[in-house]
Amino acid sequence: MITPLLGTSFIGYSRSTGTVVCGRAVTPGTGVTLEPGYLSATPEEVERAMSLAAAAFPVFSNLSGKTRAGFLRAIATEIENVVEDIVERGPLETALPEARMRGETGRTVGQLRMFANLIEEGSWVDARIDRADPDRKPIPKVDLRSMSRPLGPVAVFCASNFPLAYSVAGGDTASALAAGCPVVVIAHASHPGMAEIVGAAVVRAARLTNMPEGVFSMLYGGGRNVGQAVVKHPVTQAVGFTGSRAGGTALMESAANRPQPIPVYAEMSSINPVVILPGVIERGEEALAEGFFGSLTLGVGQFCTNPGLVFMPADRGDAFLAKLKSLTEAGTPGMMLNSTICKSYADAKAFVAATDGVETLACCASEAGPGQGSPAVFTISIKDFLRHQALQHEMFGPATLIVRGSLQEIEAAITNLEGQLTASLHATDAELAQSTGLVNALQQRAGRLIFNGFPTGVEVCNSMVHGGPFPATSDGRSTSVGTMAIYRFCRPVAWQSFPDAALPPELQEANPLGIRRME
Amino acid sequence: MITPLLGTSFIGYSRSTGTVVCGRAVTPGTGVTLEPGYLSATPEEVERAMSLAAAAFPVFSNLSGKTRAGFLRAIATEIENVVEDIVERGPLETALPEARMRGETGRTVGQLRMFANLIEEGSWVDARIDRADPDRKPIPKVDLRSMSRPLGPVAVFCASNFPLAYSVAGGDTASALAAGCPVVVIAHASHPGMAEIVGAAVVRAARLTNMPEGVFSMLYGGGRNVGQAVVKHPVTQAVGFTGSRAGGTALMESAANRPQPIPVYAEMSSINPVVILPGVIERGEEALAEGFFGSLTLGVGQFCTNPGLVFMPADRGDAFLAKLKSLTEAGTPGMMLNSTICKSYADAKAFVAATDGVETLACCASEAGPGQGSPAVFTISIKDFLRHQALQHEMFGPATLIVRGSLQEIEAAITNLEGQLTASLHATDAELAQSTGLVNALQQRAGRLIFNGFPTGVEVCNSMVHGGPFPATSDGRSTSVGTMAIYRFCRPVAWQSFPDAALPPELQEANPLGIRRME
Repeated sequence: MITPLLGTSFIGYSRSTGTVVCGRAVTPGTGVTLEPGYLSATPEEVERAMSLAAAAFPVFSNLSGKTRAGFLRAIATEIENVVEDIVERGPLETALPEARMRGETGRTVGQLRMFANLIEEGSWVDARIDRADPDRKPIPKVDLRSMSRPLGPVAVFCASNFPLAYSVAGGDTASALAAGCPVVVIAHASHPGMAEIVGAAVVRAARLTNMPEGVFSMLYGGGRNVGQAVVKHPVTQAVGFTGSRAGGTALMESAANRPQPIPVYAEMSSINPVVILPGVIERGEEALAEGFFGSLTLGVGQFCTNPGLVFMPADRGDAFLAKLKSLTEAGTPGMMLNSTICKSYADAKAFVAATDGVETLACCASEAGPGQGSPAVFTISIKDFLRHQALQHEMFGPATLIVRGSLQEIEAAITNLEGQLTASLHATDAELAQSTGLVNALQQRAGRLIFNGFPTGVEVCNSMVHGGPFPATSDGRSTSVGTMAIYRFCRPVAWQSFPDAALPPELQEANPLGIRRME
Repeated sequence: MITPLLGTSFIGYSRSTGTVVCGRAVTPGTGVTLEPGYLSATPEEVERAMSLAAAAFPVFSNLSGKTRAGFLRAIATEIENVVEDIVERGPLETALPEARMRGETGRTVGQLRMFANLIEEGSWVDARIDRADPDRKPIPKVDLRSMSRPLGPVAVFCASNFPLAYSVAGGDTASALAAGCPVVVIAHASHPGMAEIVGAAVVRAARLTNMPEGVFSMLYGGGRNVGQAVVKHPVTQAVGFTGSRAGGTALMESAANRPQPIPVYAEMSSINPVVILPGVIERGEEALAEGFFGSLTLGVGQFCTNPGLVFMPADRGDAFLAKLKSLTEAGTPGMMLNSTICKSYADAKAFVAATDGVETLACCASEAGPGQGSPAVFTISIKDFLRHQALQHEMFGPATLIVRGSLQEIEAAITNLEGQLTASLHATDAELAQSTGLVNALQQRAGRLIFNGFPTGVEVCNSMVHGGPFPATSDGRSTSVGTMAIYRFCRPVAWQSFPDAALPPELQEANPLGIRRME
């Protein structure tokens, strides 16, 4: 290991001196605990991290986009420099394979560089200029100019299922830093060593690029106490979170009950409905089943875009189901991220299996070992599905529920679904053209509509929407993936009648940054 | 009157058949009640308005921008057609003079036409296109396209202080309809007749332009019960509100506690600090006092941008204060919007006057008649100001508190202020250049920064930000004035791998609408 693992929080440019062990990494399946013990940040250290963030904000937020881009690029480089540490420690903490560790490292540094490019170019601030007109009647028009400005320090909670791309230097951190917000990360108890490796890389990058101390801190502390302290702290101006519905709604409640309520961007719970129309079934059931099974079992089903719900006609698709059954039975149990997720998955499957009207189409024939999750497929009629609201709860793992009924029943059922990250429609072009009502219903409930494809695989790009109505996310007006994610941490500010030299460069008359503006 | 006043709600294209009188307009000052009695919408009618809105949403939201623009323009024309009704009824209900009624009618139709132009042009949807790359390694890139789409039906609460521009067909309604959201308006008890005049105009416009029934409903009902029913209704997807802090925070709480939490855009409480630096005082104290007094007393101080707080040096500005004193003493009491506002204003002044450390610099010499509010100016030292958090509460009316201290104390006090709609700085260019810390502190607390000007007068344009951190608004990421207000009622939606013909025109390959896109 290049990075010495000390087991302590990063309080700005210092390390914590806490002495209470709040946890250790545990290797999934084996239950082997890993060194070092991780020490809780003390309340004084939490306070100091917040004070440093508050002091860093006016400095950091007024750095040029180019300078902040340099910091983001330095983070990417520093992470690449410790990829072998990640590959060594990551699989021990998460059971994710080396290839996934390397791939996710690539995604993480790619995201950081994407935001670096965005803020270096600079047009993202949506600069708007309305010039004065002193001769306007009945009253003169003032000079008014506006642009996006950062909200202030942001609390970022690490995700268990993306220990890199949605953790310490993941999408939430990258977009918040890009916007100009200092970040206080709350490490996930499930992969503290990876958090330390990446946290140390961020701190090195901050020092190398002369960032103000407090632009980044990272706290250990058994999660809830330290996390709630940060969310409730008056300095914190927004929260990023990826995790369970219970965790996300608890943060929403805390944030709403502060003296000053703040926005929470929690990406929580989605079962990603897949609707299959008859024409597609006729076109080839086995290939469809293979595609679906691949999406269902990718990463042991531990993706927020996992397809946990299928709607299909009651009178078609026997070969699709037969193929899915054989694939499931021949499937392989996979090691899950941690024992809590593994137990929740087993409980969720048991609950669905025991629900009135549910039939088990197929279970994996191989028995799951300790810590493992295995694929399962359940079926139910639409009528019975609609009687059980709890069937809309996420089974976080490679299990799905197939709901069968008439096309009319399917459309009606969609209008009763909770909000989703994605909705997929498998149809022929002719069916699609005739399915306006169905497509509208899907659109009202999801952030991303997929045609003849599966929901896993989230492209990181300008047009990605990885968000959706509650409970898919706490705030369906946002995305946590792609360049639009930066707007979560901004608000518009207007300058009226300011002298040109006192305006931010983005709004100065000569447009010195050469950005696209509305004027 | 062209518009017959029936005293009943608009439930889509029907009128309410409720029979319980919930209120009557009262002429401020005289206490004379006006006919007709206004009848509460029944719970069944509220339910029907919501069902109609839900049914209208998929139709209305998929109309072209041009077609929705036609509806907005028809509303503007229908309102202009009844301007004499407004001028006849308005002053009786609100004590606002005829000139204000005509001016506010102009602003209201101007806002409707501004949003019509915006959606007719179409680029506001922020269309983003990432084309497929089937040859990309290691996995092919999918075609992904995104744009802003409307949230769903919106509840709009009328404002007492803008009976036209922030009521039935005001900025919230105009921006929600422009986005593609049906609107359910909750009329304000203070000006029910004006609500009926404008509501009837909106309904005529909806019929004339063949809008789906339910695109607009307007409900009477003593405010809270009907309003809470609409906010809690599962069909409602966002709330617009302008009013008191207590009213706004009650709506925020209701919305956060729904099974599906929804966004609330409440514009609530702002005291709009004005900071005066020494150089400006030296440049001319009397003119500064006149400008300030004009802003303070405009519309009897009943604007959300009223300057209720001034920071100035302790050792300068005697002539400014002397002039302000003489202007205040010679000022005229003005009739306020209603008896509740009048009483709250009197209570707020009495509270401030009785607070330890506060001195009354000047009161209006003329005694205020029934329903009237008169100007008042109080002073306090910064040290004493910081001891009383309650001095940050809005005095809704023409009163202000002048806080005096050193420049260092002023900057420190600013960092303790709650969120504001505006912050004004009076300084020389040289002082401005040296005031980076102060300007940063103001920027962190306000949506609009004003240099050498006063906060009243809110330009309706692309760059206006009429929003600010809590409690100025519930959601400082938004503005309720200007074209950006449309984004309050939208969320991004992405389409993945859809055939071109099935995409919205905004995202089709040939760009048939000719809009600006990111591609």
